[in-house]
Amino acid sequence: MSTGVWLIGARGSVAVTGMIGALAVRAGLAEPTGCVLESPELRSEAVPGIGELVFGGHDISSIPLVKKAAALAEAGILPARLAGVVQDALLEIEQDVRPLPVHDTQAGVAEAIGADLDRFRRRHHLERVVVINVSTTEPAPPPHPAHTDLDALRAALDGPDPVLPPSALAAYAALCAGCPYVDFTPSTGARLPALDALARSQGLPYAGHDGKTGETLVKSVLAPMFALRNLKVRTWSGTNLLGGGDGANLAEPAANAAKCASKQRVLAETLGYVPQGATRIDFLEDLDDFKTAWDLITFEGFLGTRMRMEFTWQGCDSALAAPLLLDLARLTAAAHRAGRTGPLTELAFFFKDPLGQVSHALAEQWQMLRDALAAFDARITRR
Amino acid sequence: MSTGVWLIGARGSVAVTGMIGALAVRAGLAEPTGCVLESPELRSEAVPGIGELVFGGHDISSIPLVKKAAALAEAGILPARLAGVVQDALLEIEQDVRPLPVHDTQAGVAEAIGADLDRFRRRHHLERVVVINVSTTEPAPPPHPAHTDLDALRAALDGPDPVLPPSALAAYAALCAGCPYVDFTPSTGARLPALDALARSQGLPYAGHDGKTGETLVKSVLAPMFALRNLKVRTWSGTNLLGGGDGANLAEPAANAAKCASKQRVLAETLGYVPQGATRIDFLEDLDDFKTAWDLITFEGFLGTRMRMEFTWQGCDSALAAPLLLDLARLTAAAHRAGRTGPLTELAFFFKDPLGQVSHALAEQWQMLRDALAAFDARITRR
Amino acid sequence: MSTGVWLIGARGSVAVTGMIGALAVRAGLAEPTGCVLESPELRSEAVPGIGELVFGGHDISSIPLVKKAAALAEAGILPARLAGVVQDALLEIEQDVRPLPVHDTQAGVAEAIGADLDRFRRRHHLERVVVINVSTTEPAPPPHPAHTDLDALRAALDGPDPVLPPSALAAYAALCAGCPYVDFTPSTGARLPALDALARSQGLPYAGHDGKTGETLVKSVLAPMFALRNLKVRTWSGTNLLGGGDGANLAEPAANAAKCASKQRVLAETLGYVPQGATRIDFLEDLDDFKTAWDLITFEGFLGTRMRMEFTWQGCDSALAAPLLLDLARLTAAAHRAGRTGPLTELAFFFKDPLGQVSHALAEQWQMLRDALAAFDARITRR
Amino acid sequence: MSTGVWLIGARGSVAVTGMIGALAVRAGLAEPTGCVLESPELRSEAVPGIGELVFGGHDISSIPLVKKAAALAEAGILPARLAGVVQDALLEIEQDVRPLPVHDTQAGVAEAIGADLDRFRRRHHLERVVVINVSTTEPAPPPHPAHTDLDALRAALDGPDPVLPPSALAAYAALCAGCPYVDFTPSTGARLPALDALARSQGLPYAGHDGKTGETLVKSVLAPMFALRNLKVRTWSGTNLLGGGDGANLAEPAANAAKCASKQRVLAETLGYVPQGATRIDFLEDLDDFKTAWDLITFEGFLGTRMRMEFTWQGCDSALAAPLLLDLARLTAAAHRAGRTGPLTELAFFFKDPLGQVSHALAEQWQMLRDALAAFDARITRR
Repeated sequence: MSTGVWLIGARGSVAVTGMIGALAVRAGLAEPTGCVLESPELRSEAVPGIGELVFGGHDISSIPLVKKAAALAEAGILPARLAGVVQDALLEIEQDVRPLPVHDTQAGVAEAIGADLDRFRRRHHLERVVVINVSTTEPAPPPHPAHTDLDALRAALDGPDPVLPPSALAAYAALCAGCPYVDFTPSTGARLPALDALARSQGLPYAGHDGKTGETLVKSVLAPMFALRNLKVRTWSGTNLLGGGDGANLAEPAANAAKCASKQRVLAETLGYVPQGATRIDFLEDLDDFKTAWDLITFEGFLGTRMRMEFTWQGCDSALAAPLLLDLARLTAAAHRAGRTGPLTELAFFFKDPLGQVSHALAEQWQMLRDALAAFDARITRR
Repeated sequence: MSTGVWLIGARGSVAVTGMIGALAVRAGLAEPTGCVLESPELRSEAVPGIGELVFGGHDISSIPLVKKAAALAEAGILPARLAGVVQDALLEIEQDVRPLPVHDTQAGVAEAIGADLDRFRRRHHLERVVVINVSTTEPAPPPHPAHTDLDALRAALDGPDPVLPPSALAAYAALCAGCPYVDFTPSTGARLPALDALARSQGLPYAGHDGKTGETLVKSVLAPMFALRNLKVRTWSGTNLLGGGDGANLAEPAANAAKCASKQRVLAETLGYVPQGATRIDFLEDLDDFKTAWDLITFEGFLGTRMRMEFTWQGCDSALAAPLLLDLARLTAAAHRAGRTGPLTELAFFFKDPLGQVSHALAEQWQMLRDALAAFDARITRR
Repeated sequence: MSTGVWLIGARGSVAVTGMIGALAVRAGLAEPTGCVLESPELRSEAVPGIGELVFGGHDISSIPLVKKAAALAEAGILPARLAGVVQDALLEIEQDVRPLPVHDTQAGVAEAIGADLDRFRRRHHLERVVVINVSTTEPAPPPHPAHTDLDALRAALDGPDPVLPPSALAAYAALCAGCPYVDFTPSTGARLPALDALARSQGLPYAGHDGKTGETLVKSVLAPMFALRNLKVRTWSGTNLLGGGDGANLAEPAANAAKCASKQRVLAETLGYVPQGATRIDFLEDLDDFKTAWDLITFEGFLGTRMRMEFTWQGCDSALAAPLLLDLARLTAAAHRAGRTGPLTELAFFFKDPLGQVSHALAEQWQMLRDALAAFDARITRR
Repeated sequence: MSTGVWLIGARGSVAVTGMIGALAVRAGLAEPTGCVLESPELRSEAVPGIGELVFGGHDISSIPLVKKAAALAEAGILPARLAGVVQDALLEIEQDVRPLPVHDTQAGVAEAIGADLDRFRRRHHLERVVVINVSTTEPAPPPHPAHTDLDALRAALDGPDPVLPPSALAAYAALCAGCPYVDFTPSTGARLPALDALARSQGLPYAGHDGKTGETLVKSVLAPMFALRNLKVRTWSGTNLLGGGDGANLAEPAANAAKCASKQRVLAETLGYVPQGATRIDFLEDLDDFKTAWDLITFEGFLGTRMRMEFTWQGCDSALAAPLLLDLARLTAAAHRAGRTGPLTELAFFFKDPLGQVSHALAEQWQMLRDALAAFDARITRR
């Protein structure tokens, strides 16, 4: 039951950490720490094993995977030992990592992406290929009439002007090629009405947005705590300091705005009101992949007494994101196998800005996930 | 449906804050912030209103309630304005706060406590009286054969030597007098087998232990977060700095040990293993009721990458505990009304060291609570 | 030896806290905590006592001082008791707080300010009047040729267009009226070459900029620590969350930029290089005067080992600034009395952005201050 | 001008990091970051260069230096690259690291230590040898009459019972052999009156106690900050979490008490009063050499307003201590060369618990150090 994982941004830190991790787990060189699907309570027939994943992808960068692995080891994200051991396997994956196609029209680019996906599928005899966007965050695109209508979109893509941002074009190409699509970033991806229609007409599922790896993960348990205890949150302010490629990109105001909006949603929807305060993202190159977030929460208890909580989170972004990448590849493959189509709202557990009107409380999201796996298993067995 | 709330430690900060808060909410002078039962999802027929609670209790201290209220206002725990407004109502409650009875035998003390409870019930035509221990933490008592056998206990209480620590004697007296019992502290209370047998034979419920107000509350959402994400917690160390009467008492090594054990249970039972590290409690008189806790958590992600989280919690103990006191009085009254007997394991949401083998994850405890309320409602309607 | 203190922004939090504090210390109702000049090592003949200060000032607000005092007590900045006791004395000061004059030309405004200063001096038989700017932070003004030449400035002030920002116009008026001038804010104040020339020609001293009350105070001891230990600071990032009038004003980008630049100077000049990172100021209304700052410092030790330090500072801005206000009034009066003219570089201890090329290390600034007091004493005795 | 550095505890983390660091700096492979004497303001003729240091020592452990270096690299304390490069040089030092001598009497042990020192000096043609104790912290020894009288001590050392704790016996042996002695730990070392007399009679200097590397370093700048600003520190509580050999040893109550006392001295002597609160040290094996300290400081400003500051320090103990070890070896050699005898109170900058009644303020200690170097230079030139 080999499953292809086609990564948009295949030479980035998250992608390469995910590849090496999957290779290491398969070879028995590492524990699947951080892989949610390895919890005993989430065992499922429908889900492919980590060892059954086959990697490929697109990237605009041309840094060799082996060199990227060495850089990750140097930065302390990977054990130096591991980067060496998996070298041969990385060289093999290298065969399936291609430059992002260029063409006069976006329709042409989409077709070329589709051709790459087909070649990958045939070459490895894959049952299915899940396309996952792990490239850097885009600014929100300007609205366009073709975004809401699939026919209009098809027509517009043939024109000379770009209609879709890269993440949405990748989603379009994946869905046209019969591949489920996951957006691990806050970018547009598949969340345009025209693409939702395309997914449904193709009988394909899609998932997103924005992997929940650090500060927002903590928010998704602390905000329900205040809510369940009926304590009134007065202010919630967050500062995120991060380096790495993601940090540099988020220093751009437009991308920053997209990300910050994604991060605040959990508060309003969990508490039922919007406390004062904002989330900031600042680029601090020297921190590289080791992000530091500080949050100050002030709240009010019985008889108006003012209290406060602070937390500091110092996490390695790639080490937190990579196992979720593997989880999402496997889950989306299972959903596809089980015949699930449209937005995978049941995967909210993994996202800062989940699809649909769903709970942001981590514990409820976990139950949704467990139920979804049971449903996938049931459908597969029934067949 | 008037419900009596008899507080062991009625002149302490938590008790007096609870009384004033209930008076203020009844008079429309304060919101029931921090009162869990006021959440719309927990509406219940079985539960008496905050305004239906009538207060009394025992205390070894003789400080007048009005004076204690002034001290709380001075310390910033109560709005100064409020302490003035409720003065008359406090003077009335003062009539029902009595010195802890003394007698040659513990059986005699228990009888005198029972007499006080009866008088209180009759004087206010109360449907039931819930006894709640909010006095300072005791050290764990030395084991005694009479603790495990009700008949042996009854015989031993007639002897000249003390057999039960004060919290357990209060539980014994309450249960003998037909009153449900709640232990808001880590003290022994009703958790001896002989007292469990007494509760069951009397058809009474009891609850405990140790109100979950600060650091442990946060642990009960963060520990599940690490578990659900399959991240490995390597160390978890906590430092609690607190003043006030509770702090002074916890500076005693034996009481401190009882409290710290209560605080660590959540980690082992949620994670399934015991991370390195300990919880410390240090007395810092000057902080008074404003406790500060600092926790350092180090954890391991994918491929062994080391990460860390810190949090600081600066909470007012009385302001956090008092609304829970009201919740527990109301819930225990509802349980009694619904015919529930024995340990109220379904109230784990409120306790650091809950009765029974139950989940320590806050979200699961909340669902248990919601289910329990529904069950109480169902039983009452059926009658 | 009565000394007048004329406050630009006399109805603001810092000004009113300073007035009340001086009244309370004089009446023996409060300790002079936070008043640097009360340290035994800084005793000086030249310096007037706190009880010898007489207050007046300008403000565009018209909130009565007594009402402002009540608001400060309500916000927990002043003991409620104190606000009541000093009520009569505040009503007297109220006589000397006037609306900021208006006029067709800036020269006219300056003249009117001078007239107010004269009236104040005569009314109270004051030996001298120190003018201190504690109004809200201004953006940096656009450059103007008249800023560098006193004659050109005098000519331009007669014209219809404003040439000077309000803080500089106040400095001009004060110096023309024979009054030393202090800028407690990061605004322009007296730091234009034309105003420096005016001060020297008038034989007057002036001081500034931007009272060092919180995060920067801590920086001024931590940065030298890293420097003296030859540790390499790689990044230093600061987040300041503050409410109150100052916070609202600093939410304006231009004022924010002026303030942030003032806050970063200490690092570059103490370390000799500029670490990565920035200082942020975010408005968080609910915090009111209780500012919270969080700083993350990452540094490198022997053989490149990476380490880090974080601090959180939770201070009441007015309570930190007001005693410095009294210190600066007294010191500037002493400098004037001792015949000191031009920029008071020796007062760097008090400022985020001190005048002149001076050390930013707090310990060295303290020695400069002690030496300055000794010099003032020597000059006065000699006379 | 070769200078021997004889380390008691030569196979420990601090010692080996120091050796490797000196080798790396000499070879131009590393910057002398953290070496205080490399600051331009502290250039001195009297001080030997880092490259002129020759290492040897005693240890009860027999782990080879090369193996210890590999372990340090594995733990992230040393760059892996460096541990390889200096391998040959470490094998040479290995020749001069000997097991601690054993003998029937302490006099016999001292004599054997002296013989080892002589052999080391002759073998390398060293101008002088500085003995530095970097072994683990001892509990304070019980008082003994021989501690205060040199003749009594000499007599007692010939007896069968131990009179001196190991650190003091090492100091005795060093001084008898004509070597200056430095205690980098809080152990007894040379601070007994009998040993002070011995140092003076031998014309030798000695230094100590307890290298100031982390939390106390920060205290030595923050405590003066509060003092200079006349702010009243109400409470100061510290928690130190540390692993490594030092941590394991400090888990012993007696050693812990010695260390904690050393850490609190700075507050009382800088502030002039003792704030509430204590310093805790807890062993947390998993942190290894990366110590984490958290301090909470509450203080009072003008008119009694309560404020607070927290800091977290996450430092690598060996990386902080090793460069100070090199500084102290060089400084003590310079003092000896300049004819300085008795306690080196002028080196307080380096110690938590400095010899003599000296300032604990870091900035003043720095000036003392600069003055001392100037004095050494002057004496050497004069000769």
